[in-house]
Amino acid sequence: MTDSGPRVRGVPEGDNRERMICAECGFVLYDNPKIVVGSVARWGDRILLCRRSINPRRGFWTLPAGYLELNESTTAGAEREAFEEAQARIQIEGLLAIYDIPRISQVQLIYRARLVDEAVAAGPESLEVRLFGWDEIPWDDLAFPSVRWALHHEKEALVTLTTRCSPPDPTDGLGE
Amino acid sequence: MTDSGPRVRGVPEGDNRERMICAECGFVLYDNPKIVVGSVARWGDRILLCRRSINPRRGFWTLPAGYLELNESTTAGAEREAFEEAQARIQIEGLLAIYDIPRISQVQLIYRARLVDEAVAAGPESLEVRLFGWDEIPWDDLAFPSVRWALHHEKEALVTLTTRCSPPDPTDGLGE
Repeated sequence: MTDSGPRVRGVPEGDNRERMICAECGFVLYDNPKIVVGSVARWGDRILLCRRSINPRRGFWTLPAGYLELNESTTAGAEREAFEEAQARIQIEGLLAIYDIPRISQVQLIYRARLVDEAVAAGPESLEVRLFGWDEIPWDDLAFPSVRWALHHEKEALVTLTTRCSPPDPTDGLGE
Repeated sequence: MTDSGPRVRGVPEGDNRERMICAECGFVLYDNPKIVVGSVARWGDRILLCRRSINPRRGFWTLPAGYLELNESTTAGAEREAFEEAQARIQIEGLLAIYDIPRISQVQLIYRARLVDEAVAAGPESLEVRLFGWDEIPWDDLAFPSVRWALHHEKEALVTLTTRCSPPDPTDGLGE
């Protein structure tokens, strides 16, 4: 990290907002909100989580997710992150959720996915990766609130997508 | 526009991709895809379009839309763009579509909205603004493909949201 780059606030000509400008070279940084792409990836009834090896929130569990790169589709980005963080190959099933987080200038797009095979392994940004059943999820050690949101939203989506079957007590049926 | 800023390609230390770096000051530009927010805003059965006063596509018709700003929610961004481009106050009804356009590193989030009142007027980025009935839309003079997509998707969504009524010929009914 150097001291250089856009560090001075100013309104560029023809603009109506303050931007960061480099005092050395005059470059104007048009900084924009960032897109995070990720997935809730399932193998049977277990879900892939990664324990972070980097800050923020080193040691806590997260979904495979990260910044979308230039010229990358959001689905390709979600697939890349699953591979980078957990060596996981996933098949995307659909968009699960959009989380709008203006405080940190992020829009998160989280996909529903299934693992193509069970073989997962920690990538450079993970200490370990694991498949968790719902009751095994380390709820107190999740890295970010949106991880918890996405796990719950995926569970809800799965219910919506699952064919209904009769409740355990057959006297609850319509024929009662 | 100066000649300064990040113009040299290189892989920064600890990274695995080429980024643009400033030869003068060493600043690394982590450029990311941009989020465009906009709306299909309706007044009765007419839709708000703006004729662009700026390039690209000066003189062509578009939806009120633009780049999301830092620390702005996507709905607030869509409302701001409607006001900036058409002096229009809108009430957002829901997310209509996500357009993933990796070729130009854009993710567009387009909302369904209704105008709070009929008073609209060209802002600095518009030559004129107008409310169009479906058959009046200048299909050959739309600025971008995603404008056409959004207009059609909004029409489809409206059908889905509208209570069904019997077809014109009553012999088509279930009672036939």
